[in-house]
Amino acid sequence: MIGKSMYDIDTPALVIDLDAMERNIRGMADFFRDRPAKLRPHAKTHKTPELAQMQLDAGAIGITCAKLGEAEVMADAGIRDLLLANEVIGAQKIARLVEVAKKSDLIVAVDSVENARAISEAAEAAGVRIRVLIEVDVGQNRCGVRPGEPAVRLAQEILKLRGLLFQGIMGYEGHIVLNPDREVRESECQKSMTQLVSTREALEAAGIPVEIVSGGGTGTYAVTGAFPGVTEVQAGSYITMDARYKGLDLGFECALTVLTTVVSRNGPEIVVCDAGMKAVTREFGMPESKDTRMEVVHLSEEHGKLTVKDPGGVPYRVGDKIEIIPSHGCTTINLHDTFYGVRAGKVEAVWNIAARGKVR
Amino acid sequence: MIGKSMYDIDTPALVIDLDAMERNIRGMADFFRDRPAKLRPHAKTHKTPELAQMQLDAGAIGITCAKLGEAEVMADAGIRDLLLANEVIGAQKIARLVEVAKKSDLIVAVDSVENARAISEAAEAAGVRIRVLIEVDVGQNRCGVRPGEPAVRLAQEILKLRGLLFQGIMGYEGHIVLNPDREVRESECQKSMTQLVSTREALEAAGIPVEIVSGGGTGTYAVTGAFPGVTEVQAGSYITMDARYKGLDLGFECALTVLTTVVSRNGPEIVVCDAGMKAVTREFGMPESKDTRMEVVHLSEEHGKLTVKDPGGVPYRVGDKIEIIPSHGCTTINLHDTFYGVRAGKVEAVWNIAARGKVR
Repeated sequence: MIGKSMYDIDTPALVIDLDAMERNIRGMADFFRDRPAKLRPHAKTHKTPELAQMQLDAGAIGITCAKLGEAEVMADAGIRDLLLANEVIGAQKIARLVEVAKKSDLIVAVDSVENARAISEAAEAAGVRIRVLIEVDVGQNRCGVRPGEPAVRLAQEILKLRGLLFQGIMGYEGHIVLNPDREVRESECQKSMTQLVSTREALEAAGIPVEIVSGGGTGTYAVTGAFPGVTEVQAGSYITMDARYKGLDLGFECALTVLTTVVSRNGPEIVVCDAGMKAVTREFGMPESKDTRMEVVHLSEEHGKLTVKDPGGVPYRVGDKIEIIPSHGCTTINLHDTFYGVRAGKVEAVWNIAARGKVR
Repeated sequence: MIGKSMYDIDTPALVIDLDAMERNIRGMADFFRDRPAKLRPHAKTHKTPELAQMQLDAGAIGITCAKLGEAEVMADAGIRDLLLANEVIGAQKIARLVEVAKKSDLIVAVDSVENARAISEAAEAAGVRIRVLIEVDVGQNRCGVRPGEPAVRLAQEILKLRGLLFQGIMGYEGHIVLNPDREVRESECQKSMTQLVSTREALEAAGIPVEIVSGGGTGTYAVTGAFPGVTEVQAGSYITMDARYKGLDLGFECALTVLTTVVSRNGPEIVVCDAGMKAVTREFGMPESKDTRMEVVHLSEEHGKLTVKDPGGVPYRVGDKIEIIPSHGCTTINLHDTFYGVRAGKVEAVWNIAARGKVR
């Protein structure tokens, strides 16, 4: 496909506007260039080692993964500094975790002494030492220990474990990254980061050095990334953006669309295309039509239905290709096996989404 | 994994209760055994040739596919009688369609003379004849020609095309298959099938023989399958069912769950598991906990959060495995690469979901 027109791509297909994506990568890298905090982009969004490498080339200090399977893919692609920002539970996964640690500088999150002990034992048996961050619950009410003393007690236990290397703490303010009210988002993020950094201070007061304080997402990077005491930010969605994040007006561009073919015209007001819920997710609402003269009003499994605002004005015929902007980039990308990178209407890159479906 | 306990499966994982699935397959086959209409199960649900073969072995006359990529997988697995129940648009796809027709008795839906001509030309050039059904819009307002005369005019054009073999009509009452009110569902389905069968009559009155009249889904199979003049029904979800279809009380069992591991207990009222939106979809609402003492209240990308109704009564600890029932089976299955078939708690079969992600 390389060198061909984007309209020669068979559909539905995941398309990235390379100019927009590169501006997003540079824009986020610029924000962190002269700050104490650094960027560790989250690969859960793109799931593609080639894109992770571009983020590293632009200055990111490492890569964040959500799942062990993603970390395996990134480590196999030669990326060394990896944070697996979730707890890894059970003997099967811990055995795989140790294998990833043998070929990378892996960091993993823990929130219980039982899990820390299980990882330490497996690491020791394999002759490796695994770096760990304690996950602190900074208000998301999901995983993590409570801020302050509970984190100190867990750190003291981790320091006794010979298979682990305590590196610091992480806290994800996931409950607020998508809050549409900028003031609320920023003030709530300040609260979360205050909890995280006060936990750092409690650890240091107990004589425990803290190298890494990791947090943040695309919706809060500007607060988290400027917060004294935070050392790195895990933003992911900024690279592609999506229709929902676009509404937050964060200074990044929508680089991601699903290219889809008109398969039926059911009268002058309706355009039916070949992208449904199996090509673009709708849990965050309907995708947007890139051509603003139309609106996506329904997705069934394999069809999207658009209505035409001015029936006289839209010339699309069966076989024509149109673009829709996902409302949720991360889950939409996870439906596809291939990214088509496009510049000035021509295909310039085709990437395998190697960590697609790596939920384990 | 075969022979091991289901609780040895790493998570999140897609599990089928084989006893329940086999009862569903038998139950639907029994309904059609002595009727004029026959069953052509929709493979868009399971996307797995081994399960399609079980449906054929139980008496189904053929298999329905939503996408060309699914039809390719089913034809490659040796399944011959295939209905591709959507329009196939564009030269790239039509070239693939012809290849499928060379190795199967493919039927494809059309709703325009332009598309019929393009398929006919490609078929003729390849020396095959492709069977076609005209899709009739029976109220879904998506693809298809209007009932009656428009279908007759299109059929007359198709009869002139030497690469096509006109076989009949199809109409999908997709706008009502999930209507929770049985009376409304049945009466609306009667209206749709009246439109479809009156189109059959109009064709026959014009001297055009109609071999196939295809329609229906799981929510309406009992109406469509008993409607005089309908020859086959395309039900799909009945094989696994899901939490949403379960509410329709159709006589089939929920055979599908996502097995997931407890990764954190954030206090006595909260269980956090490792199945999020990338392992179970939520566009039809939250999945259900199989253990009814808990309720799934939130899905983020890689985590599910359940609340415990009686905090004293739920013993789950980190590392324990629980099951959740998808609200939408078809899109959830499409997130996974593997089905684990389980009987009496032991893994009996492991199937590759070969048509997963085949959206083209």
